[in-house]
This record gives sequence, C-alpha cells and structure tokens, in this order.
Amino acid sequence: MQDKSTSLAAAGPFSEFERQAVYRAIFTRRDVRSQFLPRPVAAATLERLLLAAHHAPSVGFMQPWNFVVITGSEVKAAMKAAFVKANAEAEAQFGDGRRQLYSALKLEGIGEAPVNLCITCDRTRSGPVVLGRTHNRDTDIYSTVCAVQNLWLAARAEGLGVGWVSIFNDADIRSILKLPDHVVPVAYLCIGHVEELHSAPELEVKGWRKRLDMRSLVFSNAWGRRR
Amino acid sequence: MQDKSTSLAAAGPFSEFERQAVYRAIFTRRDVRSQFLPRPVAAATLERLLLAAHHAPSVGFMQPWNFVVITGSEVKAAMKAAFVKANAEAEAQFGDGRRQLYSALKLEGIGEAPVNLCITCDRTRSGPVVLGRTHNRDTDIYSTVCAVQNLWLAARAEGLGVGWVSIFNDADIRSILKLPDHVVPVAYLCIGHVEELHSAPELEVKGWRKRLDMRSLVFSNAWGRRR
Repeated sequence: MQDKSTSLAAAGPFSEFERQAVYRAIFTRRDVRSQFLPRPVAAATLERLLLAAHHAPSVGFMQPWNFVVITGSEVKAAMKAAFVKANAEAEAQFGDGRRQLYSALKLEGIGEAPVNLCITCDRTRSGPVVLGRTHNRDTDIYSTVCAVQNLWLAARAEGLGVGWVSIFNDADIRSILKLPDHVVPVAYLCIGHVEELHSAPELEVKGWRKRLDMRSLVFSNAWGRRR
Repeated sequence: MQDKSTSLAAAGPFSEFERQAVYRAIFTRRDVRSQFLPRPVAAATLERLLLAAHHAPSVGFMQPWNFVVITGSEVKAAMKAAFVKANAEAEAQFGDGRRQLYSALKLEGIGEAPVNLCITCDRTRSGPVVLGRTHNRDTDIYSTVCAVQNLWLAARAEGLGVGWVSIFNDADIRSILKLPDHVVPVAYLCIGHVEELHSAPELEVKGWRKRLDMRSLVFSNAWGRRR
C-alpha cells in the first residue's frame, strides 16, 4: 500500500492548446461506416488504442473488459452475414415513411475496416461482491462503455475512424466469437485509417435526425426544473 | 438533406502535440473523492463540459441524455443521506478481510464538490423504433455512458475533477431528483476544481486492487485465442 501523500501529484488545467486538442477529438469524432482506407493498422497504433481503453474508469477498479481483435476474413464474413440478417429484421420494424431512408443508409464497414474489435464485459471478474457495484449490477457494463469511448477518442487523434455496429442478434456474436456465458459483447467496432470524415454526424447529414438543443436537456436540482 | 460530398472534410491524424494532449487526458483522469476545492465552477466551464457530453455518439442519433445540475445544498444533503444508507448496506456485503479496508475508503465527495450532476437516459426519446437499437435495447444506456466519459475527459483538461458515485438505491435517486419512470439515472457525478490528483487510480494506491496486464486481456479472432 502506497502512502497517500506520495501518490498525489499536481494536476491543474491543461494549457489552452492541449485543452483545444481534447475538445477537437470530442467534437470531430464520428461514427464511421464508409470512409475506411484499406491501409493496415500498425500493431503499435492498435496497442495504444487498447491501452487507452484499458485506462477507462471501472467500478471497483474491476477492469471487466476484454478485447477480441478481429482481422481474419472468415470471422469478418460471418459477422457481416449476421449483420445482414439482423438488419433485414430491423428494416421491417420501420414504418413506410422511414423504411426507404433506412434501407439507403450504410450502417457498417465490417468488411472494409482492416480491424474489427469486440469489447466485452466479464461479469464475474474480481468476484461476486464488487466495490461500487452492490446497488447497480450494470455498472460493470458502464465501465466497459467508458473503455469504448476512450478508444474512440484516441482513434480520432491517431487518424483512425471507428464505427460501432449494434445491429446483431446477441446469439450470433456469441457463437461466432465463442464467448462464454458470463461474458457480454458490449461493442462491436470497425476500425481503420480515414482521410475524411463527415463534418456533422452522418445520420444528421443524411436527414435521419437533427441535433437537439443542448440547453433544452439541462435541468436544475430536479427533473423538469429549468435553470 | 445535405449533399454527402459537401459534408466530408479532411480528417487526418492530429499533430504529435495534440495527440499527446488527448492521451494525457485519458491517462491522468481520475475518479475523485477527496481533492475537490470549494471554488465554484464557472457557468461557462460547466457549459463546455455539458456540450462535450452532448457530442457523445448515440444510437440512431437518439441523444437520450438529460443533465440534472445539482448545486442546492438540500438536494446534496438528501443524496448524501441516500449514499450513507446504501453504503452501510454495501459494507455488510464484504467479508471480514475486506470490510475494514472498505470502511476506510472515502467513496464520494457529494458535499465537497460545488457541482453534482445526474446524467440520465430517456428510454422513450425519438419514439419506439430507434435505428441501431432494434436488437439491443440497452444501447441507449450505452450512449449515455459515452456522454459521461466525454464529460470526464473534458473536465480533466479544464482542471476539474469528477467522481462517479454509484452506491445508491435507484428508488432514492428517483425520488430525490423527481425522475419520471421512463428515465434512468445512469451516472451521479461530483464535479469541482482540483489542484492535485492521484498519480494512479485511488483504489490501486489504497491497496484495494491492482491494474491488470493489458496484454492478458487481448484475444485474436475468438475468445481465449492468444495473439
């Protein structure tokens, strides 16, 4: 056990330039489906992305994540087939007005992205009682999503695009990636170099849905109370 | 609908200095319980944090989040009392060996942090069928967690610490913040200026749990298959 006093270090605000870099990553990050370049992702770059993910906050320092790095064309083809099946089911759920636009949208880049990555959550890691997880059992899943977002922002800084594909039947992912029952596939990501990104979210560009006014989403001290 | 070609913009890697700033935020971010300064958080700074959260990825561009900003001392006191009650329940779940260390840990800064923030997920936003949420209903919660992580990293760059408190009974948060049934409280955050942070996660510093070797968490093409 380290002495607390020796572990504390000065931690003020970043310089203006550093601060702008963090916001640049946040504001220019996109969910990428079509802009992936075939150029391979260097092992050292992928390692940095995974290390960024591994430094996410986690409930009780549980670190419940694993990273299944997919580069094999057979696994990609199986995942693509699982997507195609699920996407047909999804399409049928939209009413006539939206279905045509839905069908026109490209929603994944499984085959084009040099790297696919499944980030999972091991719900048994570190034992049955986890600090901070006693009252909300899903906080381990939340930790895993924080890892996804860390990776996504690091990828933006590295010039890599990331697309999160969520249109799968859970049983298909489990079977293709051979996941044990106690492990949940939280995110299936397509990763590759990009030279261009949309200047706004693609679903906004394509007319699917607009960005909400942030101020309309903020309340003061209780739900519904305006500032 | 905007023409796709006009929306695409050059988006290569960041400069080395910008890249390092993004990684600095990721690697030096901490879950803060004890380092909050009483200095108030400027409205403009809080606005930037909320805007960073609002630029998280969201399933089907659903933007399911709301932000309940808590500065009132009565609401904070009620949340603190809810924490104390839940934490006693939590403590009782740990075996003799761990309980003493658990009790010695400070797990929240509700009263000391000038701003508390509840980030919620409105599960009905944008209607019953949401693009990308057809096969995993929890993807709206995942989007909300991405917003938390965006805010957390932006806060680090601003010199603000963030602590995520998850030891509450759901019914208490709902009642104190008057949340409607269709809204889920995903994260309860304590936010304030800091001048010092631990150089490693506090739970590691205090001997609760060690960081795992990242390489042991990575598989290739299927669960359990080493690179």
